Amino acid sequence: MRRREFLRKSILYGSAAVFAPTLLEGCISGQQKEPAHVHHSTHSGKMQLSWFSYELELRHTFTVAGFSRKVTPGVQVRIEYEGCTGHGEASLPPYLGYTVEGTMAFLQKVDLSQFQSPFLLEDIMDYLDTIEEAQTPAKAAIDIALHDLVGQLSGQPLYALLGVNPDKVLSTSYTIGIDTPDVVREKTRECAGMFNVLKVKVGYDGDEQMVRTVREVTDLPLVVDANQGWTDRQKALDKIFWLHEQGVQMVEQPLPKHRLDDSAWLTQHSPVPVYADESVQRLRDLPGLKGAFHGINIKLMKSTGIREAVKMIHYARTEGMQVMLGCMTETSCAVTAAASLSPLADFADLDGNLLISNDLYEGVGLCDGRLCLPDRPGLGLKEL
Amino acid sequence: MRRREFLRKSILYGSAAVFAPTLLEGCISGQQKEPAHVHHSTHSGKMQLSWFSYELELRHTFTVAGFSRKVTPGVQVRIEYEGCTGHGEASLPPYLGYTVEGTMAFLQKVDLSQFQSPFLLEDIMDYLDTIEEAQTPAKAAIDIALHDLVGQLSGQPLYALLGVNPDKVLSTSYTIGIDTPDVVREKTRECAGMFNVLKVKVGYDGDEQMVRTVREVTDLPLVVDANQGWTDRQKALDKIFWLHEQGVQMVEQPLPKHRLDDSAWLTQHSPVPVYADESVQRLRDLPGLKGAFHGINIKLMKSTGIREAVKMIHYARTEGMQVMLGCMTETSCAVTAAASLSPLADFADLDGNLLISNDLYEGVGLCDGRLCLPDRPGLGLKEL
Repeated sequence: MRRREFLRKSILYGSAAVFAPTLLEGCISGQQKEPAHVHHSTHSGKMQLSWFSYELELRHTFTVAGFSRKVTPGVQVRIEYEGCTGHGEASLPPYLGYTVEGTMAFLQKVDLSQFQSPFLLEDIMDYLDTIEEAQTPAKAAIDIALHDLVGQLSGQPLYALLGVNPDKVLSTSYTIGIDTPDVVREKTRECAGMFNVLKVKVGYDGDEQMVRTVREVTDLPLVVDANQGWTDRQKALDKIFWLHEQGVQMVEQPLPKHRLDDSAWLTQHSPVPVYADESVQRLRDLPGLKGAFHGINIKLMKSTGIREAVKMIHYARTEGMQVMLGCMTETSCAVTAAASLSPLADFADLDGNLLISNDLYEGVGLCDGRLCLPDRPGLGLKEL
Repeated sequence: MRRREFLRKSILYGSAAVFAPTLLEGCISGQQKEPAHVHHSTHSGKMQLSWFSYELELRHTFTVAGFSRKVTPGVQVRIEYEGCTGHGEASLPPYLGYTVEGTMAFLQKVDLSQFQSPFLLEDIMDYLDTIEEAQTPAKAAIDIALHDLVGQLSGQPLYALLGVNPDKVLSTSYTIGIDTPDVVREKTRECAGMFNVLKVKVGYDGDEQMVRTVREVTDLPLVVDANQGWTDRQKALDKIFWLHEQGVQMVEQPLPKHRLDDSAWLTQHSPVPVYADESVQRLRDLPGLKGAFHGINIKLMKSTGIREAVKMIHYARTEGMQVMLGCMTETSCAVTAAASLSPLADFADLDGNLLISNDLYEGVGLCDGRLCLPDRPGLGLKEL
């Protein structure tokens, strides 16, 4: 199979077209082959926590302003309870500052034996914060696995437990990587038929050329992510006005994350919504961001998972801020979790599972550019 | 049975000691006798909405600064779906400004046929706000019935779906009504053995005498509610210092609801937490209250129900504000709903079902002064 066909098929069906999925009705029962290096928590209890490191292989070398890489380290987490298995994961792109070793050391400290049931989400998440201040991806992995379990035990998909309408799941943007004009044109042509919004990285010399090249091929709405790449606020504003003329609908993190006063100025003057990404991690960061941005990019790996993400969404809405849901390179496990929240958001940038070649699950799919959620209990994952 | 015995038994067991409860396992199936004046929604659909007016009879004439009454008007709501019946209610004490007629007129406008399932909580609650701006008790009635249904359909108690620990449900305060010293002493003696916190109404001439009389009999922690009864902030502060010396742990709504600057001054100087009650209705009120109070009193009849109450709790916490859960005179239906949220709160003032003589349900109970939740699906109500 040629690379382009593989990409297309994988995007449409997860990797289901390549590997035969193991159908697991109701509770995922833990029948699957255990990977070689699974670590089991030494704490006994009703909930059994285990994990293994799993490196995500990127389809294309990933380049943003400043660095590039071909893999993303990660840790897959399982929680077994009453014959069901909840799945979660920690994605650990190096720029976040977390490691596989640190994540696994944290998981080793987690003692779930003190909790009678996975439904005790508030208590368990509070407890995780008492173990260590940081390690947000490890906390997210546990949160996601617990939500998966709670859904399976209730016989309800996660979106139902969140009270949201699965028909309102958003279209995801898809990132066109930085490359030569010919490659960018080809990629854009390929993706324009599958997605309703494209994302372009900006914030480096040559970003205008990149946007122009994409625009040669498609008039789809664009969003851009500057990854803190601009330093002069007036130049950033000029660039945003130019991007606005190119049909860009939103700009992410234009200035360095701590430059909130300059962000506030930019937000006041920008013709398109300005979103915080690096400037925001968790719920507690939000009161300090008021006025500095139009919206926030919530990523489960930063927020410690679904439960805190929900709190962040409602806090932001109450303060009149918009919300987007983003992700790291992740398997369909964490991306399905984030997609389930997207009916509450304005933008979804949930293409992380489409960027890897070794997904472990069939989960959220793509239907005419819109994310579509499995209607099975919990995350509704099928192991590949 | 003497009045005191009746009160004690009813408080301990709901009215179960008096009426034989109808045990309804799993889904409440609508087998019960239909009251004479049940109104059925004229809108067809998968969810069937019906309601009837039901006047709550108070055990004792209810007196707060300004008025007294012997009944509370109300409307009971049912939503049937796939063989299950969700229960909700609107309590309509006159001072809230809502009527039975207005509530029923609102319910007649509600068309649930456009929603496929009671799980679509976010959409349904958004829709209710588009019908009419106010009518918060009617909206709460629907919200509570939907949550009851969602729990029954998931086979999970409401507290589990909220992710909270039922072992952390709070003690409720119980209000000692304004009366002659002899009656106050008798009532306090009676209640001191059953509750862990007592509430005293203040904000009128003679409130010091009232607090002194209660203190003659018990050294239990006290909370006080001034119901906007004070007008001079310095005098209010002096009184709060005196109340603090009497072991009062919290004061509710000392000043008129719109006097936020004076409330902020009081909050800054008060030795005990100052809570907003009349100053806060819904989530959208909270950003305007920052700094004006230490905490907020959330009541389902003001907040439009459970879903918005959860958002209010997390917003308040993020802003460093405390939370109490209050109620109107209500049956065990709405009080059980509020009690299910109490693990997320600092104070519970959920004695509304104990103040009426014609409760319709067995629901939340009292265990050594602590609220205790049924572990049945949804609200876990049994009809009496």
